[in-house]
Amino acid sequence: MNNKLLVLGTMAYDAIESPFGKTGKILGGCATYIGLAASQFKTSCGLVSVIGEDFKHSHLDGLKKKGLDLTGVETIPGEKTFFWSGKYHNDMNSRTTLETQLNVLTKFKPVVPENFKDSNIILLGNLDPNLQLEVLDQMVHPKLVVMDTMNFWIESYREKLDEVISRVDVLSINDEEARQITETHSLVEAAQQLQAMGPDYVIIKKGEHGALLFHGKKIFCTPALPLEQVFDPTGAGDSFIGGFAGYLSECGEITFEQMKTATIMGSAMASFTVQKFGTESLKALTRERLQQRIHVFKSLTEFEIELT
Amino acid sequence: MNNKLLVLGTMAYDAIESPFGKTGKILGGCATYIGLAASQFKTSCGLVSVIGEDFKHSHLDGLKKKGLDLTGVETIPGEKTFFWSGKYHNDMNSRTTLETQLNVLTKFKPVVPENFKDSNIILLGNLDPNLQLEVLDQMVHPKLVVMDTMNFWIESYREKLDEVISRVDVLSINDEEARQITETHSLVEAAQQLQAMGPDYVIIKKGEHGALLFHGKKIFCTPALPLEQVFDPTGAGDSFIGGFAGYLSECGEITFEQMKTATIMGSAMASFTVQKFGTESLKALTRERLQQRIHVFKSLTEFEIELT
Repeated sequence: MNNKLLVLGTMAYDAIESPFGKTGKILGGCATYIGLAASQFKTSCGLVSVIGEDFKHSHLDGLKKKGLDLTGVETIPGEKTFFWSGKYHNDMNSRTTLETQLNVLTKFKPVVPENFKDSNIILLGNLDPNLQLEVLDQMVHPKLVVMDTMNFWIESYREKLDEVISRVDVLSINDEEARQITETHSLVEAAQQLQAMGPDYVIIKKGEHGALLFHGKKIFCTPALPLEQVFDPTGAGDSFIGGFAGYLSECGEITFEQMKTATIMGSAMASFTVQKFGTESLKALTRERLQQRIHVFKSLTEFEIELT
Repeated sequence: MNNKLLVLGTMAYDAIESPFGKTGKILGGCATYIGLAASQFKTSCGLVSVIGEDFKHSHLDGLKKKGLDLTGVETIPGEKTFFWSGKYHNDMNSRTTLETQLNVLTKFKPVVPENFKDSNIILLGNLDPNLQLEVLDQMVHPKLVVMDTMNFWIESYREKLDEVISRVDVLSINDEEARQITETHSLVEAAQQLQAMGPDYVIIKKGEHGALLFHGKKIFCTPALPLEQVFDPTGAGDSFIGGFAGYLSECGEITFEQMKTATIMGSAMASFTVQKFGTESLKALTRERLQQRIHVFKSLTEFEIELT
């Protein structure tokens, strides 16, 4: 198994307001977060995305320095990069979108670079299901296809979304969205229904409550790191799935046991991301700090059975 | 250290409606759930409570058969047992109280039986803080005082509640109520503030998302068992804290490590309780089934660190 990881997603500029402050235009987009999280692992990670002429060289260089392959990132002349602006409220769980400028996204025709067509793992980031399918169709025998999605696509692109879901191995989705798709309240039931739609593995993300990994009748509970302050939740879900896929790409083995550890890696990545604005935390992250945090996760969940 | 556990709480009749059906008057009350959960462990557990003349002998016998000492349960002649009726909505997370008849509760003067005054562990169930204090004052050098509370006491008995909190070692409370008391959103911050009020240990219960145990800077994440169906959430929190205290009483050691396992025992107890109406599940529970479930909790949370 090769250790190539192909990521489809947006690269964007975000402007974020939270109770802790307000940013100017900062680097964002799901492919950016996924790539930065995956780059912590021994993987050859390529991004398929689209940017405008305004995208800063320093930002491209920063991603390249992390070892990310940007051959699949198309620059559209005379156009501007996708822009999103949002405001988080006091509880950090709800947010209001202030502005969305699709810009280059409306012209995005994803092309997978030749040398990434045989990637063992594909990660279809949260994006138009039509684009997810276009990329999937360009791949040659992937070992594992992972997808992430959100409410917008459920509401407006349901048929296409179901088609993508039917073709992936791992579906990553928020709890409310899992309930929305399956019209059921119990997450265990929702996960069973989602598995019946195609994916062998379903990950239900629950924000500050962590995530649940389902595979057949097996379940694994991934905690979220309890934090004093969540500074900026933007990109937490993308960092999660990027860490998940990056770890699996490095370890090269696709089993439920490896996936458990992979969700812990994902949760660790998300915990870093929310501690600073934007990608600041992930950019500064080292393998050593990641290892330390994984040990924190171990101590968060490990207990002795003393019952006899 | 002796293995005596003294429990203060209500014994009640409940009538419950949920999407799964409707019960007549069934056995309830926090002392009942706590006692039944604690009775799974090698502990000498005594209840301090109050009942009316209508309380069925068969119900008393059932509790005695589980080894519970009912010397501290007072029957008030000519009065009726505390009655609560409630209805759970479709998501099982919200409920409406249909009726509350305090009955004997208004005349409750808790008296701790002589041979339980030296109990090593006291569990002050969710009740009027004045009654919690009355019981606390009757005890001789307890090793560990555990208390549970809820929103009603926070809203209307705040001063007395703070007094109890200042005198206990372990505070068990729901997430929303922890936020309410401390007026802070972050549960980590809330737990720090609650510890500053007195308790060395704070347990924040999060319903279907499990619980968090805090001790100084240490944190442990207890999962809730993901279930296909939650049949009746009544008594889940009481079962949790009853299992917690029962386990600690059996193992006879009060350390953070033991408390971690104790919260797992509590979560296992809660998982049984919600699978049937009322106390049905706890009454039928065996040590063997409990052990099996603890192993399920182990597999829910155990992962390998492979990162090098």
